Amino acid sequence: MSDLRKTSVQDLLRSTDLDREVLVRGWVRTRRGNKYVQFIALNDGSTIHTIQVVADAEIFPEENLKEVTTGSCLAVRGKLVASQGKGQAVEIQASEIEVLGTTNPEEYPLQKRGSDQKGISLEALREIAHLRPRTNTFGAVLRIRHAMAFAIHKYFNDNGYFYVHTPIITGSDAEGAGQMFRVTTLPEQNPPLDEAGQVDYKQDFFGKATNLTVSGQLEGELAAMALGKIYTFGPTFRAENSNTARHLAEFWMIEPEVAFNDLHDNMDLAEDFLRSLVRYALEHCADDLQFLNDQYDKELLNRLKFVVDNEFQRLTYTEAVEILKSAKQKFEFPVDWGTDLQSEHERYLVEKHFKKPVILTNYPKEIKAFYMKLDDDGRTVRAMDVLFPGIGEIIGGSQREEDLQKLVTRMREMHVPEEDLWWYLDTRRYGTAPHAGFGLGFERLILFVTGMSNIRDVIPFPRFPKSAEF
Amino acid sequence: MSDLRKTSVQDLLRSTDLDREVLVRGWVRTRRGNKYVQFIALNDGSTIHTIQVVADAEIFPEENLKEVTTGSCLAVRGKLVASQGKGQAVEIQASEIEVLGTTNPEEYPLQKRGSDQKGISLEALREIAHLRPRTNTFGAVLRIRHAMAFAIHKYFNDNGYFYVHTPIITGSDAEGAGQMFRVTTLPEQNPPLDEAGQVDYKQDFFGKATNLTVSGQLEGELAAMALGKIYTFGPTFRAENSNTARHLAEFWMIEPEVAFNDLHDNMDLAEDFLRSLVRYALEHCADDLQFLNDQYDKELLNRLKFVVDNEFQRLTYTEAVEILKSAKQKFEFPVDWGTDLQSEHERYLVEKHFKKPVILTNYPKEIKAFYMKLDDDGRTVRAMDVLFPGIGEIIGGSQREEDLQKLVTRMREMHVPEEDLWWYLDTRRYGTAPHAGFGLGFERLILFVTGMSNIRDVIPFPRFPKSAEF
Repeated sequence: MSDLRKTSVQDLLRSTDLDREVLVRGWVRTRRGNKYVQFIALNDGSTIHTIQVVADAEIFPEENLKEVTTGSCLAVRGKLVASQGKGQAVEIQASEIEVLGTTNPEEYPLQKRGSDQKGISLEALREIAHLRPRTNTFGAVLRIRHAMAFAIHKYFNDNGYFYVHTPIITGSDAEGAGQMFRVTTLPEQNPPLDEAGQVDYKQDFFGKATNLTVSGQLEGELAAMALGKIYTFGPTFRAENSNTARHLAEFWMIEPEVAFNDLHDNMDLAEDFLRSLVRYALEHCADDLQFLNDQYDKELLNRLKFVVDNEFQRLTYTEAVEILKSAKQKFEFPVDWGTDLQSEHERYLVEKHFKKPVILTNYPKEIKAFYMKLDDDGRTVRAMDVLFPGIGEIIGGSQREEDLQKLVTRMREMHVPEEDLWWYLDTRRYGTAPHAGFGLGFERLILFVTGMSNIRDVIPFPRFPKSAEF
Repeated sequence: MSDLRKTSVQDLLRSTDLDREVLVRGWVRTRRGNKYVQFIALNDGSTIHTIQVVADAEIFPEENLKEVTTGSCLAVRGKLVASQGKGQAVEIQASEIEVLGTTNPEEYPLQKRGSDQKGISLEALREIAHLRPRTNTFGAVLRIRHAMAFAIHKYFNDNGYFYVHTPIITGSDAEGAGQMFRVTTLPEQNPPLDEAGQVDYKQDFFGKATNLTVSGQLEGELAAMALGKIYTFGPTFRAENSNTARHLAEFWMIEPEVAFNDLHDNMDLAEDFLRSLVRYALEHCADDLQFLNDQYDKELLNRLKFVVDNEFQRLTYTEAVEILKSAKQKFEFPVDWGTDLQSEHERYLVEKHFKKPVILTNYPKEIKAFYMKLDDDGRTVRAMDVLFPGIGEIIGGSQREEDLQKLVTRMREMHVPEEDLWWYLDTRRYGTAPHAGFGLGFERLILFVTGMSNIRDVIPFPRFPKSAEF
């Protein structure tokens, strides 16, 4: 059966070259029919759609198709023809069916569902994350995830950015973005101790204590001060005991950093970037988005189109606090200038007041990181958060403090150890330049684009407290 | 100075729209001249080339340019004109020069070099990895690294593959590809113990012992059995005490996995993939490759063109052993059927015997991993290694064993715990299919394409024993 060029289901469904011999391989979603003819819905992952294989009883008596059950793997040779039935333009009149892999219907966890999620919850599918890519929902999510990753690389490549791989294992714990995972090869019991009775990390693999990175930003800034426009796209980690639908212990982050950009350039970049990505999804993932729209969230496509067609609302933190204070809505947490905004406040601004994505800027310096550029008033910094409906913060960024003395002052005020960050300070010491950047949580983007509601359902193998399966 | 649209040096050098006002920002590589005129070579990372800024003494007396030293950062406004001098087509007649960031020439580690590496070795530059992207060599390497990463994503996207993010933190240590780093949040001293006196990992963050992944292959196979054609591109880790020019503790790997591919399809994919990548580099990185060719390795461009223009030599391990046994060359390690080939043997085959890239297949099962498909003779497996001149193994892969019983038998023979890999075995239990894949070490690809000789010089921040700086 290997003499015909392999064809994907996607290719066949789009083909107008009919009445030719084809070979297709894939997995059975359903089989139904009568004593004259059997219809097999075959999927190979290239698209959410199945191709219909028509098995005439004269060639394939039903008793010969006993192994053609949901989940089994077939190679089918036959003629691609215009379909007689509804629901598909083309189908395959089978001349040969080979069962490559059987599936015992009594044991197969996805047996009951066939091609949709009926009879099994998203929660239950998380327990069989090794099989859930075989469902329509996770097939759609993973194809969209791919499309978004590619769109990100394409956007930056087309615009003259260079992709930089910042380190995953880091010897510095300076940014303080969150709790870190320790990385070690020392004995798990009775590690070597130094003279002070502390663990002697000089004897560890890297000769010092090391952790998993929480952000590639600081190293990204080093690269931007040489290559001009860079971005990172890699895994980041938080060892926080957050069992929520919005947090993962291991997630992917995109962090562009641009020499000579100020806060306004940074906002322009973030907005153009996000709208380009959503536009790419609408153009390249129409079938998968339509499925998710129909199955889970009837407003999904409208919401995506709205983001593409409308500019984000930009305002300062100070203006936002005024709006929140005069809002008729009662909040659980009080709003006062200087406190961080809670999720309920962000949702009010995005979903009720402006009814569009919002970029908040110029936050009080006390609630933001040491590296953000101080505003002239000395009270706020050139931070920006992009807030999305249903998601909350999808991007956080800032113009960076490029003045060595101001940066060192902020580090001292915030107890960030200068000696650990000598290399970072060198960027301000030698040919410093204004620059800005931000971080986009990749899974939060995928949550928004797919309309899924739990972040554990938009990454293939989620890591969270008490779970590192597969 | 912010009213003009920002332009990159790359854009300006390619521009034919002359005699217009431009604004360019970048870092000074050199300044030279006389009392009438000063020439500033400005680079912004967009290209290896600098643009010449001409500062006439009538507007810019030399004493006003004291801060314009190597490494300082400038914003220059002026007119883009055809160059009077040699070596460049265009230059900027400066009307305004703003120093954005100074550099003290007495302190700047890259002061002596200006635009080339003279006066500072690659070894010394590793100690200042935070500044080395500012050199021509590392600028070139990092731009090529970007281009290769993008070419990889583009190749797979154009060919219908889906990018899958396999987990970095893993609870399984099953593949045995190498020593692993432990990931933990337990107290570094006196961790909780269980009743048997062992560390109680049930109390660790993930409720079990976890490590950094050595490969995404097994999870990639799960995805391929649903989406058909997938690839991974992520960091992988080896906690081996290898202080060599070929090994890193943290490196990036690309692992495609394809349902319905056999060993021959796998070889075809590997060869087409590698040749496409090298062709992309030749087409998109001409300036950077020319620099590396001139500076380090006069055969680099010829070697790259040779790979694009010539098919790889394919032969079995058994045939290779015969060739090596009858070779006139004396080897340090003896060659005998059943033993793994050493670097000297691979180099002989690639560099002396065939004088081209080689794909070796069908290795003895004893020296390959448990998941490789057994050949009909029961002695060899459908493995393949792609060997490159100067690099050795750049790709390792195989057709996978899709038969559940044969796979379980191999696991038992090789003492791979079945209970840890129940999820992997499920792919063979439910709708199994022939499939194949391979792993490409990204840094080894970059070594080949750049002609650099130490793997620590082709990743921005290398991690190796006793070193996790920056």
